Amino acid sequence: MSKVITLTTDFGISDHFVGIMKGVMLGINPSVRFVDISHQIEPQNIFQAYYIIKFSYKYFPSGTIHLCVVDPGVGSARRPILAASKDFYFIGPDNGIFSFIFRSERSPFPSPSQGEGRVRVFELTEKKFFLPAISQTFHGRDIFASAAAHLSTGVNPSEFGKPVNDPVILNVPEPVIVPTQSVGTRNEIQGEVVYIDRFGNLITNIPAGILYPLKEQIQIKIKSKTISSLCKSYSEAEDLKPSSILDSWGLLEIFVKNKDAGRELGIKKGEKVIINF
Amino acid sequence: MSKVITLTTDFGISDHFVGIMKGVMLGINPSVRFVDISHQIEPQNIFQAYYIIKFSYKYFPSGTIHLCVVDPGVGSARRPILAASKDFYFIGPDNGIFSFIFRSERSPFPSPSQGEGRVRVFELTEKKFFLPAISQTFHGRDIFASAAAHLSTGVNPSEFGKPVNDPVILNVPEPVIVPTQSVGTRNEIQGEVVYIDRFGNLITNIPAGILYPLKEQIQIKIKSKTISSLCKSYSEAEDLKPSSILDSWGLLEIFVKNKDAGRELGIKKGEKVIINF
Amino acid sequence: MSKVITLTTDFGISDHFVGIMKGVMLGINPSVRFVDISHQIEPQNIFQAYYIIKFSYKYFPSGTIHLCVVDPGVGSARRPILAASKDFYFIGPDNGIFSFIFRSERSPFPSPSQGEGRVRVFELTEKKFFLPAISQTFHGRDIFASAAAHLSTGVNPSEFGKPVNDPVILNVPEPVIVPTQSVGTRNEIQGEVVYIDRFGNLITNIPAGILYPLKEQIQIKIKSKTISSLCKSYSEAEDLKPSSILDSWGLLEIFVKNKDAGRELGIKKGEKVIINF
Repeated sequence: MSKVITLTTDFGISDHFVGIMKGVMLGINPSVRFVDISHQIEPQNIFQAYYIIKFSYKYFPSGTIHLCVVDPGVGSARRPILAASKDFYFIGPDNGIFSFIFRSERSPFPSPSQGEGRVRVFELTEKKFFLPAISQTFHGRDIFASAAAHLSTGVNPSEFGKPVNDPVILNVPEPVIVPTQSVGTRNEIQGEVVYIDRFGNLITNIPAGILYPLKEQIQIKIKSKTISSLCKSYSEAEDLKPSSILDSWGLLEIFVKNKDAGRELGIKKGEKVIINF
Repeated sequence: MSKVITLTTDFGISDHFVGIMKGVMLGINPSVRFVDISHQIEPQNIFQAYYIIKFSYKYFPSGTIHLCVVDPGVGSARRPILAASKDFYFIGPDNGIFSFIFRSERSPFPSPSQGEGRVRVFELTEKKFFLPAISQTFHGRDIFASAAAHLSTGVNPSEFGKPVNDPVILNVPEPVIVPTQSVGTRNEIQGEVVYIDRFGNLITNIPAGILYPLKEQIQIKIKSKTISSLCKSYSEAEDLKPSSILDSWGLLEIFVKNKDAGRELGIKKGEKVIINF
Repeated sequence: MSKVITLTTDFGISDHFVGIMKGVMLGINPSVRFVDISHQIEPQNIFQAYYIIKFSYKYFPSGTIHLCVVDPGVGSARRPILAASKDFYFIGPDNGIFSFIFRSERSPFPSPSQGEGRVRVFELTEKKFFLPAISQTFHGRDIFASAAAHLSTGVNPSEFGKPVNDPVILNVPEPVIVPTQSVGTRNEIQGEVVYIDRFGNLITNIPAGILYPLKEQIQIKIKSKTISSLCKSYSEAEDLKPSSILDSWGLLEIFVKNKDAGRELGIKKGEKVIINF
């Protein structure tokens, strides 16, 4: 069965970078299958890459190799790494983009990444798995694509280099629960918008599943707006009003029906979201 | 031989949605082949999806599954459907995006879709062909991709659910022929611009093949402009002047040589086009 | 082993053009593999297509077919051609987009294309390798995709039509070396920016490898700016200052660390670059 390699980069789709990476990989493993996750990561935005891969990686067949090249440190001393979890492989620069699989979660909520088991991390140093010449500016081609293709042929992860015990951990914002302090006050969850999708829907870092039983009693505040219900579908929301829903990753999502909520509400990533219940 | 699944969505290419759908499908059928038709359908624009699939579906191998997720009603009562024609399968929401294959054409012109034979339509209700958990917001992943992948493994369409006899028919604009009323007047065809492509070429809903014999005698009016010839190639047109040509779908197309006609002429979808002959 | 066909076009990714070309090819050769290099070539920009393919073609497996449709002359007398080099095939219009493989290089520097050996060029005239009906506006579908797919099944290049001895050669800008004229003056290389990538990095036509030994003594002038060093990595550059580096194609690249140099410096393709050493 063909191995699957996914690609997530900030290379865009106008230039030749992504095509060349695939050409390099097909030269090493002609039967490998590619799936593009996104090449539209904002240039050098490792946080966006982190969320894209975190949201995606579990939906692929066991054994899939997730190749991610968002690499502002290319050519510097930052390490190229390979991480192997129970079911998946991750190849890219050691700048935190994969840290959802190896950090001890600080979140008070159950982590979607629990269950990956022990994750082994290796530095890519073994030159026989690179292209013969390493450029200063395109390790996506010379190191990462080449190593991913060799991995897809069945090379053992430990053959690529020495174990890494201190991979970079990205400091992503986690929601905080502030329990009620006295009679008459309410519990509070403090979170923020961590991702805005193509439709302008505002994805927060607040797991929404636990909110549904409280549905009638919650109040969501974002900017100067208050939202007091959780919808069961986009179409059941009132027109033109900010509404909320449990999104397809179990997170609280704020939207405006058939509109771009980010634009309508003038909200960007990082906007605070407060829930009282 | 590997089955082909095409994808047409309004998910864009920045987010992880399309990659995840492919991951889900490869988990069910590792040998399936994907072809992206477009993920740049304007959000919720079912008319644009209709034209894109109508223009495309016949150019694929027999047995191809056309998966289309432009789904403003996700999570509501709108039905997920599977349509099977003589040569192709169509999977997506029942909102009219596939109606070119099952409506009785109102057009006075021969339909490009004639020849699809009897089309059977089924509601997707059989949960064993879905992902185990169905979200409220991403049926592209949980229902449509999963069902398409199962269909590609050879499951019979009738196993997915009950027959649907009243699929939604989209009310797309059709051209009208107004025959000459009296001596000295001319026949008239009234149509409109239904699609504008990347180059800014204006695709109308008027079949142009029948116009060629009349080439010298026709007058095309659009906005305040009059065009009086049908070109044989883009390059034979005069610079900077609106010109017309038989496009690659047999439709009348209005263009400006090496320019963006939509922008140059200030024309949008829906603009009326009148032909006198 | 499956043959690889790469695609480079100005068709964009919103319309159905690229998907249809792939559908046509899968109908002829169901096992062919596709790699998209770029569909975001500016409409009709044959120079941009030239650089994209020149930068990319060598990174693919031997036997790869490079299909390129940037074709302002579609429907006119311009010839459709197939070029076969030692390792690769090229299919597209005869408008110079492939001329890097068959021109005698005017550049004073060693050419990256040397080693392609004798290149045979054929006009595509044999109608059995086309679709049955040839439109006036979409030869990408009716001629080029169809011919590429037939070629991928093992048809000999000479079966497609008569040899072409005078393929169109694009007049791309080449750098010029002006040797020192007298004591006290310096050698000069005159080049220009030929490509700007997604990150806003300015790719020149000046091979930079020969500059590294001179590293300390060179001065690069672009617009009103002077750059006096060649970096070893993007990250070693000073913030906000135009810097230079040897890019991954061996060319001199001018960049601003973690910024869009094209925008920051107000520089477009064609801007002159002068090196004194």
